[in-house]
Amino acid sequence: MTGLSSIGLDVGGTFTKAALVAGSGRVLREARLPTRPEEGPAAFVGRVMELLSGWKASGARPAALGLGIAGDVDSEKGLLRFSPNLRGWEGYPFKEKLARQLALPCVLENDANAAVYGAYVVELHRRPRHVVGVTLGTGVGGGLILNGRLYVGATGSAGEVGHTRVAFPGEKCHCGARGCLEAYAGSYGLARSARRLLAARPQEGAILRRLCPDLGSLEPRHLSEAARRGDRLAREVWRGAGEKLAIGLANLVLVLNPDAILLLGGVSRAGRWLLEPVRDALAHQSFRTPFDRAVVRLARPDGGRVGAALLALELASRQGGR
Amino acid sequence: MTGLSSIGLDVGGTFTKAALVAGSGRVLREARLPTRPEEGPAAFVGRVMELLSGWKASGARPAALGLGIAGDVDSEKGLLRFSPNLRGWEGYPFKEKLARQLALPCVLENDANAAVYGAYVVELHRRPRHVVGVTLGTGVGGGLILNGRLYVGATGSAGEVGHTRVAFPGEKCHCGARGCLEAYAGSYGLARSARRLLAARPQEGAILRRLCPDLGSLEPRHLSEAARRGDRLAREVWRGAGEKLAIGLANLVLVLNPDAILLLGGVSRAGRWLLEPVRDALAHQSFRTPFDRAVVRLARPDGGRVGAALLALELASRQGGR
Repeated sequence: MTGLSSIGLDVGGTFTKAALVAGSGRVLREARLPTRPEEGPAAFVGRVMELLSGWKASGARPAALGLGIAGDVDSEKGLLRFSPNLRGWEGYPFKEKLARQLALPCVLENDANAAVYGAYVVELHRRPRHVVGVTLGTGVGGGLILNGRLYVGATGSAGEVGHTRVAFPGEKCHCGARGCLEAYAGSYGLARSARRLLAARPQEGAILRRLCPDLGSLEPRHLSEAARRGDRLAREVWRGAGEKLAIGLANLVLVLNPDAILLLGGVSRAGRWLLEPVRDALAHQSFRTPFDRAVVRLARPDGGRVGAALLALELASRQGGR
Repeated sequence: MTGLSSIGLDVGGTFTKAALVAGSGRVLREARLPTRPEEGPAAFVGRVMELLSGWKASGARPAALGLGIAGDVDSEKGLLRFSPNLRGWEGYPFKEKLARQLALPCVLENDANAAVYGAYVVELHRRPRHVVGVTLGTGVGGGLILNGRLYVGATGSAGEVGHTRVAFPGEKCHCGARGCLEAYAGSYGLARSARRLLAARPQEGAILRRLCPDLGSLEPRHLSEAARRGDRLAREVWRGAGEKLAIGLANLVLVLNPDAILLLGGVSRAGRWLLEPVRDALAHQSFRTPFDRAVVRLARPDGGRVGAALLALELASRQGGR
């Protein structure tokens, strides 16, 4: 399949990132188009078709197309069941419409699943059999590769790592519950922890305060940069998030006994400030065999469109290709 | 394969339960032999061979043999890595020895995995694709059926549900950590909770106190019987355990999105006293799709030897049978 290419789309609430991707995961060509959710899914599909006509006119011959979308995706039927950022798109038969218009095999998948699959192919060249991926962005999601294949569960909802509980009663989560991993390791949870510490300790966090004078707009990148420059309060925020992340990951290791854990997404760019407390905590578990096996790695956060393209290509190859 | 039969052994620290099992899971013949861990694994294999010679002499023609053992099992190599109840048995090549002496395909598997597989075949006739099984005994274990097959993970350690964390810092667990599900839903955790409530409320729990005057020997069956007879304190103990179990199960539903959850083992005989708080908690989760899908069921606690036999039979059928 390495000679073939595939189209991957990462559909966000504002922009959609598109790429023509080789079987190796290399991006051959890319573009960005506005999603405009308010115009509805049919108009969106029209804009995608227009972009792809242009690519085809200049010689692109994709073998498949994959869409990654944030939300509750029914990948079998190829539609969205629910998506907070794409209201009104629920139930639209994306897979069927695109497959017919393009005459190509199409795949619709949850964006976290797509990103994890992309990172699995691109980052882990030896393709271990069992990999858990956790996407750390505004929210926290996840995807599972079991026996070398994306595992989506009974309704396509598997991998909702961000809403597993790591504290009781715990902080409020965007989902309405308390104590979810996302409430600590998602970017809004990190910002909340940082603002709370800064308010409680007016003498500390000088570097962080200088980097981000308006604390209302605090982002993980400010916390990473402050930690890198030696800000102890910022490092404490990362340590706190890392410890909660480790609780969630330890539960995953005990249940799934993976070969590797991949951390993806913007928050994972914090690198060692996040990774060290995670590795520390995982090294102190009672059950050695599964914890000794599971390697924790950061993956470059490129994933969604590449993963969607590769999932589609995998489907095409299983169907005998085109 | 339904015409074939298979031998299943459930190896405990004191006794080993053996059965000749049909492909349907029906027990055709059974026996119990002392395990005698102190005599070593070779002597144990000798006693097993003796039992099976007797069965063969009276016409049994098993197609395979499966062993379920509590502990950290390397099912690929067919040996025990670690078992608290069978010290000195680590590293002994059970699978190889038995396969050679019996000239049959043999399987060695963790006892919880075997029990869950047995319950899956026997209890769920429609064989849903994805099932999570939780064994509630002295300890709490688990097993995963994914895509219709037992999933054991990278080192055969998958399904350690009992040591996922459901409280912080939480009660002490036998594994050395705190807050594990087992510390609440295992029989020692239940007895601890009950004794604590009884000590704090000398006016309550009259039925339970009558059923079990020596609180040092309190067991789940006393708590079930007291709850059935209307003892409010006993019902409160079950409710507390059920709520913790629900936290662990909710995490599993979010990650694995199963079709069904099976509860097995002695503690699960409590029936509704345990099941109602679990179902209540699962009905109040933010993410509806996976929780609406996952059915929670109690399975009869027969499983270990039946499951081990059926796993062995499945292997034999994949290898072309004998």
